[in-house]
Amino acid sequence: MPESFADRLAAAVRSRRNPTVVGLDPHLDLLPEEYAAARDPRVPRAERAEAVCEFLLEVVRLVAPHVPAVKPQSAFFEALGADGAVAWERVVRASREAGLLVIGDVKRGDIGSTARAYATAFLEGTGPEDEPHLCDAVTLNPMLGSDSIQPFVEACARTGRGLYILVRTSNPSSAEFQAPGSPCLSERVADAVKQWGSELVGREGWSSVGAVVGATHPDELSALRARMPQTPLLLPGYGAQGAGARDVVAAFTGLDGALVNSSRGILFAGAKQPERDWREATLEAVETMATDLRGALGIS
Amino acid sequence: MPESFADRLAAAVRSRRNPTVVGLDPHLDLLPEEYAAARDPRVPRAERAEAVCEFLLEVVRLVAPHVPAVKPQSAFFEALGADGAVAWERVVRASREAGLLVIGDVKRGDIGSTARAYATAFLEGTGPEDEPHLCDAVTLNPMLGSDSIQPFVEACARTGRGLYILVRTSNPSSAEFQAPGSPCLSERVADAVKQWGSELVGREGWSSVGAVVGATHPDELSALRARMPQTPLLLPGYGAQGAGARDVVAAFTGLDGALVNSSRGILFAGAKQPERDWREATLEAVETMATDLRGALGIS
Repeated sequence: MPESFADRLAAAVRSRRNPTVVGLDPHLDLLPEEYAAARDPRVPRAERAEAVCEFLLEVVRLVAPHVPAVKPQSAFFEALGADGAVAWERVVRASREAGLLVIGDVKRGDIGSTARAYATAFLEGTGPEDEPHLCDAVTLNPMLGSDSIQPFVEACARTGRGLYILVRTSNPSSAEFQAPGSPCLSERVADAVKQWGSELVGREGWSSVGAVVGATHPDELSALRARMPQTPLLLPGYGAQGAGARDVVAAFTGLDGALVNSSRGILFAGAKQPERDWREATLEAVETMATDLRGALGIS
Repeated sequence: MPESFADRLAAAVRSRRNPTVVGLDPHLDLLPEEYAAARDPRVPRAERAEAVCEFLLEVVRLVAPHVPAVKPQSAFFEALGADGAVAWERVVRASREAGLLVIGDVKRGDIGSTARAYATAFLEGTGPEDEPHLCDAVTLNPMLGSDSIQPFVEACARTGRGLYILVRTSNPSSAEFQAPGSPCLSERVADAVKQWGSELVGREGWSSVGAVVGATHPDELSALRARMPQTPLLLPGYGAQGAGARDVVAAFTGLDGALVNSSRGILFAGAKQPERDWREATLEAVETMATDLRGALGIS
């Protein structure tokens, strides 16, 4: 049996004393000036994707000593088509080589035979040449139900990889379909996530089937944590979307049990301070977030 | 204003007298023997993707005179990584050049700024070199609510492209989250789809914001059609998943208002008849399905 995602994650968080995951969401308009080719439509697409890739490889190099994981967002790579797919593979590979866990933010969800193909794409590969750019975990959308999730759970059992399933998202419209009814969709999915992950609980008592719960809903976070006591949570919405360190405390047991994502707040920390080197602003943002989280969690 | 997706689709269906969409789901295990390199793990990935691509280009050439649209399924391309992304672009481009409408089956759904990037990827592109391999429409997952859909609706308004939003999926587990409650999730989403599409109704009275409703739920189809009277439906589940021509009648007004998808039933019609040329079996499957649909719809 390979070591479980949940155990690898717990070890990585403890070694950095930091439950931050850095979201790699390369908004072209916000990239530092030295990568401006990425947003110039006159530049061939392959060169634009190369500029995005170079920026992200530098981010990975900077943050790797300080955080346990990165979360590349597939959409920004897909916007650059097949050239973006090459960049995705390079960024995933470099992140893993730098000792980071990689959570592919792909939010896939489809019928069983198609879900199997997605699990191959991100968690199992089609052969040895795929291995270096597979993810340690992926995000999934549960709307299609158990048979859309099961192929991923089986892939995780074989490979020691993990999942984060959307339970309550961080965006303003999330309540439209996730909140009405009793139990509401988020509660139904939370109960299913607990069940789907019950066979994948690691040494440390955490499952490798996690859940996405927006840090922008602190009131619901406690109730969802109680519904999924062994489920690692992935909390987006910190920083640019409005949530702070105190909003995420209910997700944690010490340093364990959750990752807090920040994307723009770290990647583009320098965007409003053009006189500073962006690298310095990014590193400072990582350190500030870690300090804030440790403070809120009472970790000295 | 570009011509709307809904109007272009209605014209294409009428010119072929056929509301079939051919799903391009290249299950490697089912590919005809002459493309067996695609499933041989010793073959470099780029060559495997090339074999998949050659098969699909041949399918596109065969079916283009007979059907209005194809629906490539992203997962099977993504399973081949960056090489699969190249194949995706070639297949989309060849389909459009053959006069087919292309419905990208990607089922994306994410927060607003990320949804914007996905709309760029599939509907708007980043520059003129992207245009030939953009889709005419994409499938979307609505779980995140209106702000995850709006960037796509805006892209459709600008470009004359379209959407199909998951309302009730065809898979066995679909009821788990889509059916409980009153109104249930499918009904809530159906009402939202009607609303999202209200500004994009074309000359023929159909919106360019469509809905996916599994042909495997004939009882619900009539009720959902009544809830979304101007919404083009995309009906998966025909053939391999068990639905037949009579199950889809409620979706139609004459030949208008719906597309019926068949993937394996057409692509791999020859898989059980190894003595026959697969091309002949595929063409026969297309013709049989068209005849069955015309019969059930009372089109002479």
